[in-house]
Amino acid sequence: MMAMAARPLGIDCLVVEPGADPPAAPVAEVIAAPFDDPAALDRLARECDVVTVELEGVPTDALAELRHRVPVHPNPALVAMSADRLWEKQGLRALGIATAPFDAEASVPAIVKTRRGGYDGRGQIRVNTPMELIAALAQLPEPITEGLVSFHREVSIIAARATDGSMEFSPLIENRHRDGILRTSVPRPDLDATVAQRWARLLCEHYDVVGVVTIELFDTDHGLVANEIAPRVHNSGHWTIEGAEVSQFAQHVRAVCGLPVGSMAPTVPCAMVNLIGDHPPLVRLLAIPGVHVHLYDKSPRPGRKLGHVTVTAPDPVTLQDRLDELVALVETDG
Amino acid sequence: MMAMAARPLGIDCLVVEPGADPPAAPVAEVIAAPFDDPAALDRLARECDVVTVELEGVPTDALAELRHRVPVHPNPALVAMSADRLWEKQGLRALGIATAPFDAEASVPAIVKTRRGGYDGRGQIRVNTPMELIAALAQLPEPITEGLVSFHREVSIIAARATDGSMEFSPLIENRHRDGILRTSVPRPDLDATVAQRWARLLCEHYDVVGVVTIELFDTDHGLVANEIAPRVHNSGHWTIEGAEVSQFAQHVRAVCGLPVGSMAPTVPCAMVNLIGDHPPLVRLLAIPGVHVHLYDKSPRPGRKLGHVTVTAPDPVTLQDRLDELVALVETDG
Repeated sequence: MMAMAARPLGIDCLVVEPGADPPAAPVAEVIAAPFDDPAALDRLARECDVVTVELEGVPTDALAELRHRVPVHPNPALVAMSADRLWEKQGLRALGIATAPFDAEASVPAIVKTRRGGYDGRGQIRVNTPMELIAALAQLPEPITEGLVSFHREVSIIAARATDGSMEFSPLIENRHRDGILRTSVPRPDLDATVAQRWARLLCEHYDVVGVVTIELFDTDHGLVANEIAPRVHNSGHWTIEGAEVSQFAQHVRAVCGLPVGSMAPTVPCAMVNLIGDHPPLVRLLAIPGVHVHLYDKSPRPGRKLGHVTVTAPDPVTLQDRLDELVALVETDG
Repeated sequence: MMAMAARPLGIDCLVVEPGADPPAAPVAEVIAAPFDDPAALDRLARECDVVTVELEGVPTDALAELRHRVPVHPNPALVAMSADRLWEKQGLRALGIATAPFDAEASVPAIVKTRRGGYDGRGQIRVNTPMELIAALAQLPEPITEGLVSFHREVSIIAARATDGSMEFSPLIENRHRDGILRTSVPRPDLDATVAQRWARLLCEHYDVVGVVTIELFDTDHGLVANEIAPRVHNSGHWTIEGAEVSQFAQHVRAVCGLPVGSMAPTVPCAMVNLIGDHPPLVRLLAIPGVHVHLYDKSPRPGRKLGHVTVTAPDPVTLQDRLDELVALVETDG
């Protein structure tokens, strides 16, 4: 999606992708290689004006090495921090950003997670007793224990910072998960984003970020608590393709290429629904007005994100009707 | 742009393109061959579920032959009619659609045009006297003489028809040309589109069209007069990418693939400005809020369309401000 956003700006992408069936292949040149492959990194350094990442698992050493030869955004220190749940919490705390209690602070019930590599609920064990906690700590590699946070809402904010330091923010986005997987995201410009914006600004300025950064947050009775950060575009921001003046993908491309960033405020009422595991026929999805379908060309598999659908509407009431219809269709089939 | 719109729907495009530097190359597989190349047509017939065109100059024989093997949309008869200014006027008249006076009806001052192949003002001679008319008729191959139409506004309408016959329409779009080349297009939902919609429906139903069709019209003191039809997406509809629930490109893909068509009403105030001949630096374009840049990866040349810019805004007054700023920037540099 980032390569698609770069194309109309006349910007070509060269993508390093270790996995099979790289999603960028139809729209960008792909180097099939591990992220730390010396030849791949050398090509990036020689052929690209700027290098960026779209996941936090890229080896920091590779990014740090590249940085001697070509600008790398965002700051590899932020990528490294966000790829490790312990460093992430320590880093956030150091900036005065609230996080869940962890390790020595956490008491059961809690969630034991691997510090690195888990996502979409994988690499996590919910523990209710001290014995379960001990067993989980022994079972998971490099574990971190996180205390449960009682929240009434999960939200995220997407921030973008340009090379000149100017910033743009999405509104708070309300996210609903099921089985640890994001299902729907709805921008909520009616919610107060002051604290989330302040935290995003702190984080971006501290790490001198250029590009897009996402903070996932719990909205609790005692205020916001940061859950995770992503040094990149985020699933909860996919609605920006149709719902904002500048999509998160175009925004990131613009920022890392030294171009101005623009508004990520919603231009119309909109929402995003993930297509998980399976998806209904296109003909039924597109029969719902205001629906924009984005398929990722992946074969169905339980729990797999196969695509997403944005729905837009002229007013909030119509949006809710369309969203209800869409969710019913997706959840029946998926 | 059509291949870009097809991608998120999981639809692959295979493109036949006789010209050098095919614009679809970065996002679709391209067969570099003339439109009537037997091997190219055979591949289309074997590999595609449906074949469409994005310009009227495709040889009708090739389309008619393909039609024995694979669905071809829109109807090749409409493509043939729209590729010949005489057939076009005769075809429109036969449906009761008003056109400019032509040939025997036309008196000087008039414009002599080639029946086939001219565009963007090429292949046209303005004549003010009978002697100039005679000279022009001798100079141009297969000439047609068109009487001048006194209009206060040039408009277009984009219609889409699905396989089940259901139709969607853009509003009237106000178009401004200079030197025969489209400069700006602004959707005008405030203008009465009744007649234009009726004509578009007549045309689409008569030719059993599936896909997108554009009618360019003069808005005169005596009502609308059809100028040209295009059996395809149209430059005046490029604003739909950001400005409508369904872009004209997605709409055409949806229609020809048997999927439902959707609304092309503007979701926000918006306008489109072509980048002609040259273009200002990206950094200056993107500094204007609400600007969406679409470059075609073409090298600058006087009179050449290098890209277009859509500008959106929360309200009409802001739109006009942004549009003024954009036009000033484009016309200074272009």
